[in-house]
Amino acid sequence: MKLPLSGIIPPMVTPMCERDALDVAGLERLVERILAGGVNGLFVLGTTGEGPSLSYRLRRELVERVCRQVKGRVPVLVGITDTAFVESVGLARHACETGAEAVVVAPPYYLPEGQPELEEYLDHLVRELPLPLFLYNMPSLTKVSFELETVRRAMDEPRIIGLKDSSGDLIYFHRAAGLLRQRANWSLLVGPEELLADAVFAGGHGGVNGGANLFPKLYVRLFEAARGGDVERARQLHEQVMRVSGALYHIGRHSSAVIKGLKCALACLGVCDDFMAEPFHRFRIEERRRVERHLGELMAELEALGL
Amino acid sequence: MKLPLSGIIPPMVTPMCERDALDVAGLERLVERILAGGVNGLFVLGTTGEGPSLSYRLRRELVERVCRQVKGRVPVLVGITDTAFVESVGLARHACETGAEAVVVAPPYYLPEGQPELEEYLDHLVRELPLPLFLYNMPSLTKVSFELETVRRAMDEPRIIGLKDSSGDLIYFHRAAGLLRQRANWSLLVGPEELLADAVFAGGHGGVNGGANLFPKLYVRLFEAARGGDVERARQLHEQVMRVSGALYHIGRHSSAVIKGLKCALACLGVCDDFMAEPFHRFRIEERRRVERHLGELMAELEALGL
Amino acid sequence: MKLPLSGIIPPMVTPMCERDALDVAGLERLVERILAGGVNGLFVLGTTGEGPSLSYRLRRELVERVCRQVKGRVPVLVGITDTAFVESVGLARHACETGAEAVVVAPPYYLPEGQPELEEYLDHLVRELPLPLFLYNMPSLTKVSFELETVRRAMDEPRIIGLKDSSGDLIYFHRAAGLLRQRANWSLLVGPEELLADAVFAGGHGGVNGGANLFPKLYVRLFEAARGGDVERARQLHEQVMRVSGALYHIGRHSSAVIKGLKCALACLGVCDDFMAEPFHRFRIEERRRVERHLGELMAELEALGL
Amino acid sequence: MKLPLSGIIPPMVTPMCERDALDVAGLERLVERILAGGVNGLFVLGTTGEGPSLSYRLRRELVERVCRQVKGRVPVLVGITDTAFVESVGLARHACETGAEAVVVAPPYYLPEGQPELEEYLDHLVRELPLPLFLYNMPSLTKVSFELETVRRAMDEPRIIGLKDSSGDLIYFHRAAGLLRQRANWSLLVGPEELLADAVFAGGHGGVNGGANLFPKLYVRLFEAARGGDVERARQLHEQVMRVSGALYHIGRHSSAVIKGLKCALACLGVCDDFMAEPFHRFRIEERRRVERHLGELMAELEALGL
Repeated sequence: MKLPLSGIIPPMVTPMCERDALDVAGLERLVERILAGGVNGLFVLGTTGEGPSLSYRLRRELVERVCRQVKGRVPVLVGITDTAFVESVGLARHACETGAEAVVVAPPYYLPEGQPELEEYLDHLVRELPLPLFLYNMPSLTKVSFELETVRRAMDEPRIIGLKDSSGDLIYFHRAAGLLRQRANWSLLVGPEELLADAVFAGGHGGVNGGANLFPKLYVRLFEAARGGDVERARQLHEQVMRVSGALYHIGRHSSAVIKGLKCALACLGVCDDFMAEPFHRFRIEERRRVERHLGELMAELEALGL
Repeated sequence: MKLPLSGIIPPMVTPMCERDALDVAGLERLVERILAGGVNGLFVLGTTGEGPSLSYRLRRELVERVCRQVKGRVPVLVGITDTAFVESVGLARHACETGAEAVVVAPPYYLPEGQPELEEYLDHLVRELPLPLFLYNMPSLTKVSFELETVRRAMDEPRIIGLKDSSGDLIYFHRAAGLLRQRANWSLLVGPEELLADAVFAGGHGGVNGGANLFPKLYVRLFEAARGGDVERARQLHEQVMRVSGALYHIGRHSSAVIKGLKCALACLGVCDDFMAEPFHRFRIEERRRVERHLGELMAELEALGL
Repeated sequence: MKLPLSGIIPPMVTPMCERDALDVAGLERLVERILAGGVNGLFVLGTTGEGPSLSYRLRRELVERVCRQVKGRVPVLVGITDTAFVESVGLARHACETGAEAVVVAPPYYLPEGQPELEEYLDHLVRELPLPLFLYNMPSLTKVSFELETVRRAMDEPRIIGLKDSSGDLIYFHRAAGLLRQRANWSLLVGPEELLADAVFAGGHGGVNGGANLFPKLYVRLFEAARGGDVERARQLHEQVMRVSGALYHIGRHSSAVIKGLKCALACLGVCDDFMAEPFHRFRIEERRRVERHLGELMAELEALGL
Repeated sequence: MKLPLSGIIPPMVTPMCERDALDVAGLERLVERILAGGVNGLFVLGTTGEGPSLSYRLRRELVERVCRQVKGRVPVLVGITDTAFVESVGLARHACETGAEAVVVAPPYYLPEGQPELEEYLDHLVRELPLPLFLYNMPSLTKVSFELETVRRAMDEPRIIGLKDSSGDLIYFHRAAGLLRQRANWSLLVGPEELLADAVFAGGHGGVNGGANLFPKLYVRLFEAARGGDVERARQLHEQVMRVSGALYHIGRHSSAVIKGLKCALACLGVCDDFMAEPFHRFRIEERRRVERHLGELMAELEALGL
């Protein structure tokens, strides 16, 4: 894996056909669809992948199937975030054996840690990991942030190779970018796709954007335009990303709406089933009709953009 | 198990001697110490028990050992809170096989659910459970509360048998007590020990109080005084509980301080090891000295109270 | 004013007939109705009194009219909470001139202060005040809490005479009660009426409860029962308070619902107009009908209780 | 005033020499220093200007003095945010009489409003205002946000002319920018200076940035580079803005640190006194030394950039 890892690394949704069962054919179609879009990596078992909602058995099966199918075409990153240290390490070892390239960890998210506790946790964790580690900043879900001083110290540890920031706080991201001069091979990636262009202008290396499950080429092109300094093209593609977000992620009332919208849209396109792990459930018929309608408009807009 | 379950049901700390290894002898001493205090149940794998931080293997071992040792003297309740539905169910089945009496679940705590999603989750969960279920309201850690309307609906489901409220919000508790007339065998228990007396005056059936790991008799006597309407004795014992809380739970700076304080005090008394699961660690020597000093004072005060 | 101030000190709603105009006749009726209930003081310009929403001119007029009418029958406390120090002091001086007995201040609530800043603020404020001061803990609205260490230090200042806690956090209240042995004439009062009985059992001196605008005798009797250790009577009256709260404070969807409910009920009873200061507005007809219906039931229940 | 208002409109600090007294000479120097930097407007009585902490008398004096000195060289915007409707209107009328061009209002910030209540408030407010109105989104301080649907509706009201967003949430800003096609003369401005470049790339019209009190030219040049699409120059100046922010805004521990840092730096440069309104106080000697040291470095860096 070339470091810093850059470009678009979609946080893959997990296609399922019923409780604790993968939609195997849908998973294959999804992986191929995403890779065909020119992405630079694949991140499984993140938030969008409903990682924490899946049984450990299914998590392992997913990692195996994805690694086998990707066959090294791009690096596979595996989310190992867990409240139990031992389970995180076990999943990382399995990921290593099946051919993944790196693991990704957010702070343990039940009892909140202080920053010194979080630093000690990272220190102990990397010793047990057979793969390099990305930090995953997601304070709205984990309650605890990787504070910048904690990130700065983590950059002294060669086995930690980057930060994916999903805080939505671009000021934090700018400050994290200010640390890049400390270490040449550190990757700084952004979560929310609405901030992809901004993050690249800020010096970030790319995005882990949910919408790239659906329209990978849109995000790849936006990344390239922003990196190349083509402000006009970046603005145009960014506006299209805002339209995807506006059309698909706010149909449900709860915070599960983003994943529900993505899975439903993929199901409408015949890519994979939209079954969701508990405590969530796929959209009912009314919401699905809205997704279908919006999807038609988005497809037409993308065609007009040559995508 | 007699319903409603009432009295003191301590949320047991999990004695460990190293990562992923129980302190077996300490566990036995701890169980006996607690039972000798006259408690009415034992709750394992809760927040105080560091449940979410433990490997599934260790969780199962703990449940087995505790059930074998308790041998039916009091009901054993097992925490099955998890972000993964399948793992919660698996743990519940294991708990049933080893002789536990009930399971306890807080809302899945990574992606926050809306209340309708939470209701559907409960509905699906109880169908799979071989044991009756307590709800566990702990919004500071799970981000999601069991809203009162959700509790009210859960009371229509006979397999759900009670609510443990650790919100610290006594107005919520009063409202939950207002629902008791709906169902005679519903248990309403309170988490924070500082509110035990208030909760009993409010109509609650007892407490799941961390301090009862250490001084079970104090909490049992306070419960009895409050239930019996002995205001003066309840006030006196409540003040002693406030002293335990003030002396032992605020020594560390982070929210792990309560569990660290409890485990450290138990270690000082020779009951069990104070090893903690990641991402936390036992108190260092300076904090331990403060615990020892406070413990000495508390023991003298308890003796003066005849406890 | 006898210290500690104890009993029921209702936070009076501010009767208005249009923007920036008092409902003078309604105000007189309201004051008499409250005093007839046996209360021990009157608190004007608090949260329930919409203090921060009123023009300074109207605040001064209100204080004058209330003091003139109360004529020393009970102490009048005046809220001077403000983001501008100079305005707080100005209002306090006016309150002193018109015959008020004490002033009440919550932390300045725009830019949040740290605790050392808050302590320095109190220190500077008391030097300028011609009247003794109550602290008002209301973190949900001011964002900043009077931390217990700050309260403890404030107790060394003789011109600060008490704490009204509206946090709803009874554990905090218990800890504040634990400080009472430090100073004999310090008053500890509770805001939320749902916690009045608990607060008195905890050692508090009384309540500043919104519902006492409407049914002052109910709160006075509950206070007396709790203070006298009559657990059964206290429980019965507490349940009635819960019914008032449940019936009247949750009709609107926003946090203004409590004040809207109180003012609407007073208007239904012909006591005063229910006009509200911007940014709020009286209930429309549908909500008013619900208030009327609930009010009828509550009146019947109160009669059955001999109130 | 040309609409949309664009460029840099500094939120002016309020120079004071003691409680409730302006530093008149310092104020004149500050105004001239800012105007010499090429700014497009001046915003007084905002958060940075400690507006809510000042007496009404001083607020009026400040508006008068600033308008008299600016003499129409740039538009003066006056913050009228208040919890009391009548005081906001009174201040707006005074601002109109003294020659200000517009007023700025954040949601009333004591009791939180629901969005329908906020809309009704705006509706009633604009009817009373003699000047056009900017909305000021500052949820961390007001607790209530102008939700996007509320902004969209406000854009139908011609007397509301723009939105200053200080949420720090760039996704919100992007969505607000998506509304711009609805109305040609609507101004969209950003608060946090760390997001100025991003905001302009996003389609925003400029910034209301605290640092422009100190180094107005830096912010003006950054705005021009971003608007002109000069990515490299924008990046270079943005990095300098990050250095100002990193060096001066985090010296104190509390959220008052930004204003304290700005005022202290201005005092070090001999521009104006750094007295602060209660509940805050100027930096003590140790913090001031750190400001001085950082200021020396920043001045050298700015010179190297030709600023």
